[in-house]
Amino acid sequence: MRATVTVNLKEGVLDPQGKAIEHALHNLGFSNVAEVRAGKVISFLIDGTDEAAARAQAVEMARKLLANTVIERFDVEVHP
Amino acid sequence: MRATVTVNLKEGVLDPQGKAIEHALHNLGFSNVAEVRAGKVISFLIDGTDEAAARAQAVEMARKLLANTVIERFDVEVHP
Repeated sequence: MRATVTVNLKEGVLDPQGKAIEHALHNLGFSNVAEVRAGKVISFLIDGTDEAAARAQAVEMARKLLANTVIERFDVEVHP
Repeated sequence: MRATVTVNLKEGVLDPQGKAIEHALHNLGFSNVAEVRAGKVISFLIDGTDEAAARAQAVEMARKLLANTVIERFDVEVHP
């Protein structure tokens, strides 16, 4: 089944990439945009039929590799 | 209102970052994982109350700046 892990910087952690995007958007005339945050999304197939097991594995993968939990939080979605 | 633009490489476009993550996951013992794709997610606040207008603006922002539509596709979500 397909799973998606979305990783974002925690609230309060400086996000220079988001700031750069915000400046570029303002320069393009999109002046009503604020609080831009940039994150990453990793999607993959997990071989198996147990949705709960797939979710638990995706969380473990996020903790071990995909996210730096000191400064990032992550969400896991599993699509059966 | 808050909006999110998710940007992923189109099907068939080589994804070296996804491949690197896949190799790392296999090396960590997650051998049942395949087709890893890495993308980015940009979230922001749009000042305004019209959901349709906010969505149209987010699509325009994605086309002009956030995504390279030659090799990337994007999805827009607006959370009123």
